[in-house]
Amino acid sequence: MTDSIFYLIPLFGVVALVYTFWRSGWVAKQNPGTPEMERISKNIAIGAMAFLKAEYKVLGIFVVCVAGLLAFAGAKSPGSDPLVAVSFIVGALCSAAAGFIGMRVATQANVRTTQGARTSLGEGLKIAFAGGSVMGLGVVGLGVLGLGTLLLIFSKTIGTDAASIQKVMTIITGFSFGASSIALFARVGGGIYTKAADVGADLVGKVEAGIPEDHPLNPATIADNVGDNVGDVAGMGADLFESYVGSIIGTMVLGTVFVALPEFADSFNGLGAVLLPLTIAGLGIVASIIGAFLVRVKEGGSPHRALNTGEIAAGVILLGGTLILVQTMLPEKWTVGETVYTPMKVFGAIFLGLASGIAIGYITEHYTGTGTKPVIGIVRQSVTGSATNIIAGLGVGMLSTALPIVVLAIAILGSYHLAGLYGIAIAAVGMLANTGVQLAVDAYGPISDNAGGIAEMSELPKEVRQRTDKLDAVGNTTAAIGKGFAIGSAALTALALFAAFKTTYEATHEGARLTIEVTDPKVVAALFLGGMLPFLFSAFSMEAVGRAAMSMIEEVRRQFREIPGLKAGLDAMNRNDGKEIADWPEADRKAFQEAHGQAEYDTCVAISTRAAIREMVKPGLLAVAAPVLVGFFGGAEMLGGLLAGVTVTGVLMALFQSNAGGAWDNAKKMIEEGYEVNGEKLVKGSDAHKAAVVGDTVGDPFKDTSGPSLNILLKLMSVVALVIAGLLG
Amino acid sequence: MTDSIFYLIPLFGVVALVYTFWRSGWVAKQNPGTPEMERISKNIAIGAMAFLKAEYKVLGIFVVCVAGLLAFAGAKSPGSDPLVAVSFIVGALCSAAAGFIGMRVATQANVRTTQGARTSLGEGLKIAFAGGSVMGLGVVGLGVLGLGTLLLIFSKTIGTDAASIQKVMTIITGFSFGASSIALFARVGGGIYTKAADVGADLVGKVEAGIPEDHPLNPATIADNVGDNVGDVAGMGADLFESYVGSIIGTMVLGTVFVALPEFADSFNGLGAVLLPLTIAGLGIVASIIGAFLVRVKEGGSPHRALNTGEIAAGVILLGGTLILVQTMLPEKWTVGETVYTPMKVFGAIFLGLASGIAIGYITEHYTGTGTKPVIGIVRQSVTGSATNIIAGLGVGMLSTALPIVVLAIAILGSYHLAGLYGIAIAAVGMLANTGVQLAVDAYGPISDNAGGIAEMSELPKEVRQRTDKLDAVGNTTAAIGKGFAIGSAALTALALFAAFKTTYEATHEGARLTIEVTDPKVVAALFLGGMLPFLFSAFSMEAVGRAAMSMIEEVRRQFREIPGLKAGLDAMNRNDGKEIADWPEADRKAFQEAHGQAEYDTCVAISTRAAIREMVKPGLLAVAAPVLVGFFGGAEMLGGLLAGVTVTGVLMALFQSNAGGAWDNAKKMIEEGYEVNGEKLVKGSDAHKAAVVGDTVGDPFKDTSGPSLNILLKLMSVVALVIAGLLG
Repeated sequence: MTDSIFYLIPLFGVVALVYTFWRSGWVAKQNPGTPEMERISKNIAIGAMAFLKAEYKVLGIFVVCVAGLLAFAGAKSPGSDPLVAVSFIVGALCSAAAGFIGMRVATQANVRTTQGARTSLGEGLKIAFAGGSVMGLGVVGLGVLGLGTLLLIFSKTIGTDAASIQKVMTIITGFSFGASSIALFARVGGGIYTKAADVGADLVGKVEAGIPEDHPLNPATIADNVGDNVGDVAGMGADLFESYVGSIIGTMVLGTVFVALPEFADSFNGLGAVLLPLTIAGLGIVASIIGAFLVRVKEGGSPHRALNTGEIAAGVILLGGTLILVQTMLPEKWTVGETVYTPMKVFGAIFLGLASGIAIGYITEHYTGTGTKPVIGIVRQSVTGSATNIIAGLGVGMLSTALPIVVLAIAILGSYHLAGLYGIAIAAVGMLANTGVQLAVDAYGPISDNAGGIAEMSELPKEVRQRTDKLDAVGNTTAAIGKGFAIGSAALTALALFAAFKTTYEATHEGARLTIEVTDPKVVAALFLGGMLPFLFSAFSMEAVGRAAMSMIEEVRRQFREIPGLKAGLDAMNRNDGKEIADWPEADRKAFQEAHGQAEYDTCVAISTRAAIREMVKPGLLAVAAPVLVGFFGGAEMLGGLLAGVTVTGVLMALFQSNAGGAWDNAKKMIEEGYEVNGEKLVKGSDAHKAAVVGDTVGDPFKDTSGPSLNILLKLMSVVALVIAGLLG
Repeated sequence: MTDSIFYLIPLFGVVALVYTFWRSGWVAKQNPGTPEMERISKNIAIGAMAFLKAEYKVLGIFVVCVAGLLAFAGAKSPGSDPLVAVSFIVGALCSAAAGFIGMRVATQANVRTTQGARTSLGEGLKIAFAGGSVMGLGVVGLGVLGLGTLLLIFSKTIGTDAASIQKVMTIITGFSFGASSIALFARVGGGIYTKAADVGADLVGKVEAGIPEDHPLNPATIADNVGDNVGDVAGMGADLFESYVGSIIGTMVLGTVFVALPEFADSFNGLGAVLLPLTIAGLGIVASIIGAFLVRVKEGGSPHRALNTGEIAAGVILLGGTLILVQTMLPEKWTVGETVYTPMKVFGAIFLGLASGIAIGYITEHYTGTGTKPVIGIVRQSVTGSATNIIAGLGVGMLSTALPIVVLAIAILGSYHLAGLYGIAIAAVGMLANTGVQLAVDAYGPISDNAGGIAEMSELPKEVRQRTDKLDAVGNTTAAIGKGFAIGSAALTALALFAAFKTTYEATHEGARLTIEVTDPKVVAALFLGGMLPFLFSAFSMEAVGRAAMSMIEEVRRQFREIPGLKAGLDAMNRNDGKEIADWPEADRKAFQEAHGQAEYDTCVAISTRAAIREMVKPGLLAVAAPVLVGFFGGAEMLGGLLAGVTVTGVLMALFQSNAGGAWDNAKKMIEEGYEVNGEKLVKGSDAHKAAVVGDTVGDPFKDTSGPSLNILLKLMSVVALVIAGLLG
C-alpha cells in the first residue's frame, strides 16, 4: 500500500498530460479560418515563440549558474545536498514546459476560436475552453508528475524513515525554487512585454493616428497580441505552476514533523501527512478533467452556466474526495505538544482555505467589477477630470485591501487553530487543488481576447468581435475568484514556506531554536527592509514598462513617418473618417488597401522582446539575491524578519495594485457602455472617457505587471530561504 | 543637585515661552500694510480661528470621554493609575495650545511679511522667520514645560525609587497619548480642509473660470489661504509637538530600566538616564534661541545662508552640549545583561540618529527636488500625457522608499549596537532636540506662501509676489531635511514606544515574558491587520478629500452662476484676457471693479470647516480603537504584531506618498519655469503642463493629507498600546 502510492501519484500526472495531448490535438484539427486569419495567427505564434526562445535562453544561463551554486554549496554543507540542484533544474524545466504548452495551444486556439465564433457563441466557447483546459491540465500534470517522480526516486534511494524523509524534502524544495524563479522572470518579462506593446499600440495608434489598437495598419498590433499570449497565458501558467507546487511542497515539509509519531506508524509508515497534499492534488486532476468534460453549451444555452457547472462539479468532487482521503490517509487522532489533530480538523482547515479564497474573490469583484459602488464612484469622479479619476482609483485600491486582509487573518487564525502550521499550509493546497479547471477558465479569457483581436485585424464582420467579447466577459467573475485564490494562497503558502524554513533551520542546526522576535532590533530592521522590497520591485517594473513603452512609441512613430505607403493609407482613412469603405473615393480606397501589410510588425515584436528580456533581469535578481545576502550576512533571525516584511507588504501591494487597476479598467468600460451621471449619458470620446482612459493606462502596469509579480516574489523569497536554511551559519 | 534639576527642566520651557511672547509681540507691532491687505488678512484669521474653534469643540468631547475611560480603567486596574487621565488632558491641552499659538502668529505674520516684502527680501524674511520661531519655540516650550511639570509633581508626590518612577512614567505616558491624538485629528482635519479648498479653488477657479487661485474674484480663495494655515501651520505644529514629546517619553520609559542599577546610584539617584532626554530637550531650547538670533540677512545678503547659519549654529551647540551632558549625567560605565553602556556610546547613538535624519533628508531632496534626475524623468514623461506622468510619479514615490529604509535599518542596528533599546530611543531625541529652530524654518514656508496669496489678492505689484515666492523657495532644502527628521524620528520613536510597551507590560504583569514571535500565527495575522491599517487610513483620508472638494466645487460653481455681479466681473475679465487693465473698455473695467467683494468667501470657509471636522472623525477613531480592540480581544502578542505591521507599512506608505507628491509638485514647477525636453521649451498651458497639473493634483492629498498623518498614526497606536499595557489581561 505504502509503496504503491509512490507509483500512483506520478500516474495522475501522466493522466493529466495524456488529456492535454488529446485536447491539443483536437484544437489543432479545428478550422483556422481564412488565409488572412491564418497568416495573422501565424505571425502572432512566431512572435510569441521568438519571445519564449529569447527568454528561455537567458533563463537557461541563470538556471545553470544557480544549479552550480546549489550543487557546490550542497556538497560543502551538512545541512544541504548537491541533489538540490537536480530538483531545481527539474522544477525550472517543468515550469518552462508549462509555459510552452500553454502558449502553443493558445496561439492555435485563438484563431480557431475566431473561426468558431463566426458560426456561434457555443462553438467559440468550445474551442477557447479546450485551449484553456490544455493549459490548465498541462500545469497540474507537470506539477504532479515532476514532484511525484522526484519523491519516488529520492525516497527509494535515500529512504523513508524520519531522518531520510527530512533529507528528501530538503532536496525536493529545489523543485519549488526552480519553479518560482522561472515564474518570476516569466511574469515580469511577460508583463513588461505586454504592457509596452499595449501602451505603444494605444498611445500612438489610437490617440495619435486615430486607428483602433487591433487595426492591421497599426505596426504594434502583432506585438500587442503576442503580448497577450506571453503575459496573460505563459506568464499566468508559470505563475500558477509555482503557486501549486509551492503550496504542496510547503505542506509536505511541515508534514515531516509527524513522521516519527507512533500514531502515524500505520499511516504509510509515517508518511500520511507528507503524501496527503500530493494525493489531494492527484484527486484534483481527476476532478478537473471531469469538470472540463461538463463544460458544454448547447445552441442558445448560457456559456456562463456551462463554465459554472464545470467549476462547481469539480469543486464538489474534490471536497467529497478529500473528506475520504483525510480519513483514509491520516491516523484517527494525534498529538504534538498541546495540539490535538484529527482528520476532520485537517479537512476543516482545507475547507476554510477554500471558503476564504472564494470570499476574497467576491470582495475583489465588489471593488473592481462593473456596476459596483466603488467603480461607479470612479466613474463619477471621472467627470471632473483625470486627477479626480486617479485619486478615486488609488483610494479604491487602498480601501480594497482591508476586507481581504481581515478574511486572510481569519483563515490564518482558524486553520492554525484547527491543525497548527500544517493546517495553514494545507488550506492553501485546498484552494489550489482544482487549479486544473480553474486555470482552464482563466486562460480561456486571453484566448477569447486574442480571438477578438484576430477578428478585428482580419476585418471580419462586427458580430464576430461582439461574440468574442461576450466570451471574454463571461469568464470575468470566475477569473476574479481565481485572483482571490491566487492572493489568498500566496499569503498562506508564503507562511507555510516560512514555517518550513524555521523547521528546516532547527532540524539542520542541532539544538538550535530560531526565535524571530518582533522587538529584536535586528528583526525590526529586517522587517523594514523586507517591507520595502515590494515597493522597490514595483518601482522597477513600472519604470521598465515606461522605458519599454517609450521605445515602442518611437518605433511606431518612425514607421508612420518613414513608410510612405502606410502613411498614405492612414491619411486616406482619416480623410474618410466615419464613412463606410464602399463610399470612399476610389484613390483613397486604393491607398488604404495598399497600406495593408506595409507595417513592419517584426521590428515592434523585436523591440518588445528585447526590452522585456533586458528589463526582467534586475527585479528578478533582486528577489533571489535579497534573501541570500540577508541570510548569510545578517543571520537566520534577520532573514526571518525579511520574509515577514516582504510577505505583509507584498500581499498588501498586490491587492492594492491589482484592484486599483481592475477598478480603473471597469470604470472605463462602464463609461464606454454609456453609464449615466447626473442624468447625462457618458460616451466614448467625452472628457470623462478621456479621464477614464488615463486611469486605465495607469492601472495597466499595476494590474498586469507589478501586482501579479508580487505574489510570486513573496513565495520565491520564502522558498530561497527554505533552500538555504541548511546552509546558514 | 538631583532635586534642582526637577525644577530646572520646566524653567527651560518657561524661557522658550517668554521668547515666544516677546517675538509674537514684535510681530504684532509690524506694519500690516494697506487697509485692503489688512481686511484680507483679517478674513483669513477669522476663518482660521473659526476652524480651530469648531475643531477643538469636537476634540473637547473626545478628550473628556477618553479621559473618563482612562480614569475608570486606571482606578480598576493595578497596572495603571487614574492619574493617567490627568496627564492625557494636560497633553491634549498643550498640543491644542501649540496649534493655537502657531496659528495666531502665522495669521499675523503673513500680511506683515507681504508688507515687508514690499520693501525688501530681507525685511520679509525677518518677519516670516520671526513668525516661524514663535511657532517653533512655542511647541518646544509647551512640551518641556508640560512634561517637566508633570514629572516634578508626580515624582514629588509618588517618589523616585525604581518602583515609584515606573509608576510615574506610566502616568506620564498619558501626556504623549493626549498630544498624539490631538495631533492626528489636527493633521487629518487640517489636511482635508486645505486640500478641499485648494482643489476647489484650482479646479473651478483656475480651470473653469480662468482666474488664478488667489484672485479676489475666486470665492474659495480665502478658504484656500485659511487652509494653508490650518493644515501647514496648526497641523504641522501639533504633529511636531507629538513627535517631540513621544520621543522624549519613549526614552524616559526605557531609561527606567537602569534606575535600580548600582552604577546609577550617583547619577541623580538612579534617574540620570530618565532625565537625560528632557535635559537634552532643554539644551535644544537654548540652542534654538541662539540659532534663531543668528538668522539675519543684510541688504543684498543671501537669505539661504542666513537660515543655514541659524540651523548649523544650533546644531553645533546642541551636539557640543550633549557631549558634556551625557558625561555629566550618566555613570562612567554600566552593564545590563551582556550589554556594556558608556556615555560616549549613548552620544554615538544620538549622533547616528542625527546623521541618519540628515541623510534621509538629502535622499528625500534627491527624489523630490527641482532639477534632480527623478523629477526630470517625470517632466519628460509629462510630454506623452497624464498617464505617463502619473506612472512615472508613482514609480519615483515607490523607488524613493528604498534608500531611506536602508538608512533607517542602519540607524536602528547601529544605535542598538551602541546603547541597546535606549540607544534607539535617544537617537530620535537627538533628531528632534532642535525642533525649535527646525520648526521655525518649516513654519516660515507656509507664512511666506500665505504672504504671496495676500499680495495677489490685494493686487500688489508683481515683484512683491516674486519676493515672497523666493522666500518660500529658500526654505525648501531645510524643509526637506525637516521631513527626513520627521520620518526617521517617527520610525525610531514608534520602536521606542513599542519597546516601552513590552517593558511596561512585563513590569505590570508579574513574571510575564512577552514574546512576539513572527512565526506565531496570531502575530502573523496581526502583522497583516496592522500592515493594512495605513492603506485603510490613507483610503479614508483620500476619499474624504474627494468628497470635501466636491462640495467646494459645487459651491464655487453656484456662486459663479447665482451672483450676477461676480459673473459680470468674470466675463469682463475673460473678454480682456491678457490685456492690461488700463486698456480695457470702460464698462468692463467697471464691472470688474464692482465684482470685488461680491464673492461669498464665508460659505466656502464654512464648507471646508464642516467637511474637515466631519471627515476627520472616522480615521481618527480608527487609529485609537484598533490597538484597544486588538489588545483586549487578541492579547498582548497580537497587539505587538499589530504595532510592528503598522510601523513598517506606515513608514513605507508615508515615504511613498509624501515623496511622490513632492516630486509631482516640483515636476510641475520645472515645466512652469520652462524646462527643455528634446530641444523644446515647455511652457505653462502646454499639454505637458496640463499633464503635470494632473500629477500635482493627485499628489496634493498624498503629500499634505494622508502622507504626513501616517507618521502620527504609527506613534499614536504605539502610545495607545503603551498606555493600555498595564490594563491588558
